Amino acid sequence: MIYADNAATTKLSRTALNAMLPFLKELYGNPSSLYSFGQKAKDAVELARENIARCIGGSPREIIFTSGGSEADNQAILSAAAIGRKRGKTHIISDTIEHHAVLHTLKKLEKEGFEVTYLPVDKNGLVRAADVAAAIKDSTCLVTIMYANNEIVTIEPIKEIGEICRKRGVLFHTDAVQAVGHLPINVENDNIDMLSASAHKFHGPKGTGFLYAKKGVALQNLIEGGAQERGKRAGTENVAGIVGMSASLSEAVENMEYNAKKLTALRDRIIKGLSQISHSALNGDERMRLPSNVNFCFEGIEGESLLLLLDDKGICASSGSACTSGSLDPSHVLLSIGRVHDVAHGSLRLSIGEDITEEQADYIIKAVGEVVSHLRGFSPVWRDLISGKREFIL
Amino acid sequence: MIYADNAATTKLSRTALNAMLPFLKELYGNPSSLYSFGQKAKDAVELARENIARCIGGSPREIIFTSGGSEADNQAILSAAAIGRKRGKTHIISDTIEHHAVLHTLKKLEKEGFEVTYLPVDKNGLVRAADVAAAIKDSTCLVTIMYANNEIVTIEPIKEIGEICRKRGVLFHTDAVQAVGHLPINVENDNIDMLSASAHKFHGPKGTGFLYAKKGVALQNLIEGGAQERGKRAGTENVAGIVGMSASLSEAVENMEYNAKKLTALRDRIIKGLSQISHSALNGDERMRLPSNVNFCFEGIEGESLLLLLDDKGICASSGSACTSGSLDPSHVLLSIGRVHDVAHGSLRLSIGEDITEEQADYIIKAVGEVVSHLRGFSPVWRDLISGKREFIL
Repeated sequence: MIYADNAATTKLSRTALNAMLPFLKELYGNPSSLYSFGQKAKDAVELARENIARCIGGSPREIIFTSGGSEADNQAILSAAAIGRKRGKTHIISDTIEHHAVLHTLKKLEKEGFEVTYLPVDKNGLVRAADVAAAIKDSTCLVTIMYANNEIVTIEPIKEIGEICRKRGVLFHTDAVQAVGHLPINVENDNIDMLSASAHKFHGPKGTGFLYAKKGVALQNLIEGGAQERGKRAGTENVAGIVGMSASLSEAVENMEYNAKKLTALRDRIIKGLSQISHSALNGDERMRLPSNVNFCFEGIEGESLLLLLDDKGICASSGSACTSGSLDPSHVLLSIGRVHDVAHGSLRLSIGEDITEEQADYIIKAVGEVVSHLRGFSPVWRDLISGKREFIL
Repeated sequence: MIYADNAATTKLSRTALNAMLPFLKELYGNPSSLYSFGQKAKDAVELARENIARCIGGSPREIIFTSGGSEADNQAILSAAAIGRKRGKTHIISDTIEHHAVLHTLKKLEKEGFEVTYLPVDKNGLVRAADVAAAIKDSTCLVTIMYANNEIVTIEPIKEIGEICRKRGVLFHTDAVQAVGHLPINVENDNIDMLSASAHKFHGPKGTGFLYAKKGVALQNLIEGGAQERGKRAGTENVAGIVGMSASLSEAVENMEYNAKKLTALRDRIIKGLSQISHSALNGDERMRLPSNVNFCFEGIEGESLLLLLDDKGICASSGSACTSGSLDPSHVLLSIGRVHDVAHGSLRLSIGEDITEEQADYIIKAVGEVVSHLRGFSPVWRDLISGKREFIL
């Protein structure tokens, strides 16, 4: 099996699992307990907090552990909205290619009377920092722009946007679920006020994530109850998960440069290979993209069939976000970068892992080529295209 | 070490860990992914859902996986409130000894205009079903009463309360975090509409729980985003956690009768032993209490010192909820059952585990006796009490 869907989830690293096991076995104390056995769990959680803070350039008190990236996104945005509401500021700026954890939270706020400006992106999925600057009003309480998109993996100009927000005194949140552990992030340098991350996207465990919130940003609880996480997130800490997240993030940060170099080379090899397929097009920016990700549209075919046939050939890939794979609608991200419905339906996301070999990359290229040909052979749309009844778009 | 704080958290069972390991190792797929590798994770999640539903007498579609009991409590209560609000019903009935995950959520709703009746409990911590009946108004949209208290472990008359709610057409939620896996629960027989549970209270992993919501109860998302959990709880599923929770619940249910018998005998042995200590009193109902739990007040001492000295003797115990252990206020539960501040401060909760031996129970009795004596020797309050400057309460 070639697992090429690391944007959906990653394999838990051995280092992370080994770090977790003591907390899944003998060190099962509750971090809130006073006795020494509980304090061992507490110490592990706090050590993880320090390490994670260090990995992104924040301080430990600025890290809140959550159950994942979606929870962190929800909490960040609702908190900023609550701060805004108190000051009579109810305008939020975002963009059209955000993850649904952001978009659906914004929809909820719109129902509560917030006004949201969804900035368009260019054909490569880039938000223009100038657009952010132009959209900021006196009533703007939050700008939320993702660090790197989860489908077309375009990396947004976060530092520039952050700088604008800082100058204008507007809170800046970034959904960095696809970026943390893969790109060098420093919340100070990048002018980030709030950042969401998810462990299972960087070889940590599922069910764990964190929210960075700059000192002074008053977080609102999403989950009320006990006094955990300095009263900002109730519920007994997922100690093993937190420890595993910390270990996997350390590992990802340590190996980032090496991995990025290796992955970029193989990614570009795959891009080059898939570009040979007729009537295909790369989605997302060629340069400003995550090292591990390839996203293509192939005209005349359905993404779902593509995935199932690739599965038969031992390749795990996706057509877009795993979170919406139940849906038959084409990706809102692909529509946003100007792909028409039919073309957007024929998309393929390949997110390769650090252990991929050149042979595997070549196998992917060959397999995708074969599957696309095969599917086009059966496709009435393709027949219309080649017979001239329908015009090619790509 | 004798771990006697199973109400705070429990050791992950070997069965649960073994069930989890494949999903922490090779089976790391995302359940939302279309390819077969992802579907293996999906199948495991759905199998867990079926099993958990069966364990509580519900159906799989009525189970939503959450990050724990607090999240489930929050979602249940906010959902019922949203349903109520739509119908112009903004009155909620609860009681004064609920967990903070319930109480703080209710406080939030009070700020939003909801009226909450907090029913008093009797001196044993029992809510009277008749009080619930009397408190229900036309505007009541929810009754939320815990299954068993987390401090004094009194088991509430859930079935009776549920029956009243069903007759009156009012939604009934129960925080069953302390009860699931320890008491025989059947949501149908118990007339429960919503129920919250947490895996780590029944030897499952931390960071996982579930919410049962009867068919027809429209849940509101606490976490917005992807379409997981039939659109009711976004975020990639904590597959290993869910599988572990299911395995541990099966185990707990299978061994429930045996464990309850064993624990009840040892619990009663400890209660008898600690009753020998002068000026002490059992908290909670003698009969209607969880099999594993003992809660005492000892006059003239501070609970915190008691715990630290017991820790020195190798006993892990608590003075109340682990979730509020950072707080210096006496337990709201003990105050609710009529303990005055000073007495409430001198409380001890022992929640024994299934592997406890008779010798260990006797060691606990001896150790607590010694520690209480020792602390009283240093206590100015105790000096006042024995010299008659202050009157004994217990």
